[in-house]
Amino acid sequence: MFKDAIRDVVEGTDGGLAGVLMDLEGIAVESYAKSEAFDINAIGAEYSVILKSIQRATESLEAGGAREIAIQSEKVTTLIRVLNGEYFLALTLSPDGNYGKGRYLMRTAAPKLLEQLS
Amino acid sequence: MFKDAIRDVVEGTDGGLAGVLMDLEGIAVESYAKSEAFDINAIGAEYSVILKSIQRATESLEAGGAREIAIQSEKVTTLIRVLNGEYFLALTLSPDGNYGKGRYLMRTAAPKLLEQLS
Repeated sequence: MFKDAIRDVVEGTDGGLAGVLMDLEGIAVESYAKSEAFDINAIGAEYSVILKSIQRATESLEAGGAREIAIQSEKVTTLIRVLNGEYFLALTLSPDGNYGKGRYLMRTAAPKLLEQLS
Repeated sequence: MFKDAIRDVVEGTDGGLAGVLMDLEGIAVESYAKSEAFDINAIGAEYSVILKSIQRATESLEAGGAREIAIQSEKVTTLIRVLNGEYFLALTLSPDGNYGKGRYLMRTAAPKLLEQLS
């Protein structure tokens, strides 16, 4: 169920490389990668640490909790969508990938994932 | 000089609230806010901490250094553009602000800011 939803996001996004549904401790619930060479779990665990920093910062600033985070580095772009206080969905794509399509698919996948997580 | 460039980015972006040019220690070189009620320096200092975490993570993952980071929280969206290993430019806009225009103006302002910083 989770795998299908994650695969749909990765395969539906031009340049999509991998996706992971993960808790804020960095433990993956489910993941999907186009290629086995791509270690999405390691990346997701790193970003869960960042995510917690971001949430602390936005909360302390009374800006409200973080909802979406996008990080563009030289080699990959990672989109993170916060599902609730426990889980997030991350999508990694190539720098020339379709960023907007990825964001859209993550947003529409969120309610389905939340329903299954509860 | 710096202030003009930052103001152009903030005022040129629909929904732009404030901008800051800051070093990775969280010390502002220059900032511009539409309203005095908006403390961009405090926000920038918070995000410089996050930025360092992100850079460490992306470097350790051999994904290359972070170039652009976007954080959408409930009340504001913050765009961060890494200028070099020492400085970054941050723009905070309202959630319904023109994200794409902000990214574009930050990208085009970067070479001018870098020239003045060197």
